[in-house]
Amino acid sequence: MSGNKPGVSRDSVGVFAPATVANVASGFDVLGFALERPGDTVCLKKIRAKRVDVVAVEGDGGQLPRDPEKNTASVAAKRFLEAVGFPFGLEVTVRKQMPMSSGLGSSAASSVAAVYGANILAGSPFSVRQLLPFTMEAEQVACGAAHADNVAPSLLGGFVLIRSYDPLDVVQLPVPAGLAVATVHPHTEIKTEDARRILKKELRLSDAVRQWGNLAALVAALFQGDLGLLSRSLQDVVAEPRRGLLIPGFARVKQAALDGGALGCSISGSGPSVFSICASMEKAREVGSAMQKAFTDTGLDSDVYLSRINESGPVILGEER
Amino acid sequence: MSGNKPGVSRDSVGVFAPATVANVASGFDVLGFALERPGDTVCLKKIRAKRVDVVAVEGDGGQLPRDPEKNTASVAAKRFLEAVGFPFGLEVTVRKQMPMSSGLGSSAASSVAAVYGANILAGSPFSVRQLLPFTMEAEQVACGAAHADNVAPSLLGGFVLIRSYDPLDVVQLPVPAGLAVATVHPHTEIKTEDARRILKKELRLSDAVRQWGNLAALVAALFQGDLGLLSRSLQDVVAEPRRGLLIPGFARVKQAALDGGALGCSISGSGPSVFSICASMEKAREVGSAMQKAFTDTGLDSDVYLSRINESGPVILGEER
Repeated sequence: MSGNKPGVSRDSVGVFAPATVANVASGFDVLGFALERPGDTVCLKKIRAKRVDVVAVEGDGGQLPRDPEKNTASVAAKRFLEAVGFPFGLEVTVRKQMPMSSGLGSSAASSVAAVYGANILAGSPFSVRQLLPFTMEAEQVACGAAHADNVAPSLLGGFVLIRSYDPLDVVQLPVPAGLAVATVHPHTEIKTEDARRILKKELRLSDAVRQWGNLAALVAALFQGDLGLLSRSLQDVVAEPRRGLLIPGFARVKQAALDGGALGCSISGSGPSVFSICASMEKAREVGSAMQKAFTDTGLDSDVYLSRINESGPVILGEER
Repeated sequence: MSGNKPGVSRDSVGVFAPATVANVASGFDVLGFALERPGDTVCLKKIRAKRVDVVAVEGDGGQLPRDPEKNTASVAAKRFLEAVGFPFGLEVTVRKQMPMSSGLGSSAASSVAAVYGANILAGSPFSVRQLLPFTMEAEQVACGAAHADNVAPSLLGGFVLIRSYDPLDVVQLPVPAGLAVATVHPHTEIKTEDARRILKKELRLSDAVRQWGNLAALVAALFQGDLGLLSRSLQDVVAEPRRGLLIPGFARVKQAALDGGALGCSISGSGPSVFSICASMEKAREVGSAMQKAFTDTGLDSDVYLSRINESGPVILGEER
């Protein structure tokens, strides 16, 4: 591969972008964080023709669209190239290295990797933060809504708050030292539309007050590095009581996590993955095993991912820290 | 007055406790902050008899109850004395130095001053934070609900978040340097029950998401000292659109505040007072005048209070910093 040294113009690049946990218990629709694993890899190669082609998708079992107007990686890259005057075209290879429809932001990871790589190939005309709208356009194509609670943490790393969509206002929050996450993906599927439909469109004011009290405390806990407060504020009275019903064994999985010493446990995005935030990697390992066992007891196979909170966001392959 | 030197047992004490702004736009029912002025003064004198008497209430126009089971100052002091075994009784004098039914936490200021003083007279067996439940019992008597969003900031100073009532979980938040507040009390009255009744018991999920996105960002802004973010997050889509209807001229008062350069403007507590947070005392002075003029244009007289955020909470008279 030529042109891979810093400062030298590249003609190809491979980028890893991380999976993400959206909602984070009390932060329904406004909070997410990035994992170190799993994630997706997208490889881009410059071409002269002013178009974006999806030349290969690997590891998706044939499920992802190859149409460049429907694949999130190519959509994000194309919107970016349009914004910078289409100085070149791209051949896109997507290497799925994480489960799809898992609630871990699979489509977001692909679009973030693609647009991050395209910006590098164009000589980085945009800041990383400025790339966010392109990834949101890809989410619109993939999910029917331009959510940012997966793409923003995948792109920026760490905990990210979406204060507002109109105008877009995104706030990066600090990550307390030592935190680790056990994420368990049970082998069952929840359609995003079912996960949306099961939510009530209205909620009681008293429940809303509990939710925003907890979310405000969660933000304070991140700034203060107060793990006790973090633990107490990882509560969701809005989405989890409904969406938990769609995940077989959720109640016992959560109980196993809390009994095992997790600071908090809830549903990742719209599920079915379940995450636990823990005070150490050792604790995350124990908690992950306990959660997996609880899923097994319910008759569900699952995969466990152990990870720190990813504070870096995407990385160029070959330049991993 | 004897026994007023530190370390020497006192037999009397006078305490000033500050007025407070509850709700703070996006923090409905969970957030409040303390002002430097106005506030209330309560003077306590030890007696041998194990009872609490209200010997005088000044400045209330005869409106406040003298019955020690109904006056918030005596209720708070009595609950405290009961908790420490009633080592002495108290004569309580309340000096109202702030408007009642103004939305500025008048009953809270009296109960905080009383219990803070009683603790001093008892040799400070409790930490300041431990006094909070006694003041909440007084709020229960005064308002019919044991709210903490006025008593907690009056007692602890600064911005205070109430994460949860059961169990009680209170979080102190940092105060960005330089902030100043213009609070305007128009001479009109809103019954707390009307202010409660006008709120919808249910709200749309989309509105709730906006509210908690703003509140989470407000907390982040306080930690980061980011006044731009603070300004953008001082928005209330839940209570203000309804309660604003109860305050004559509210829309033009708020517009005058924002046109004058306030970072944000909303209703203090359940009203009718309106507060503006500003980046400097000079700006607060301008904004306070503009708000008062807008009330005048609506035909309402008003009082303006200019204040820093009070980070100290109650002070013993004669020992003010």
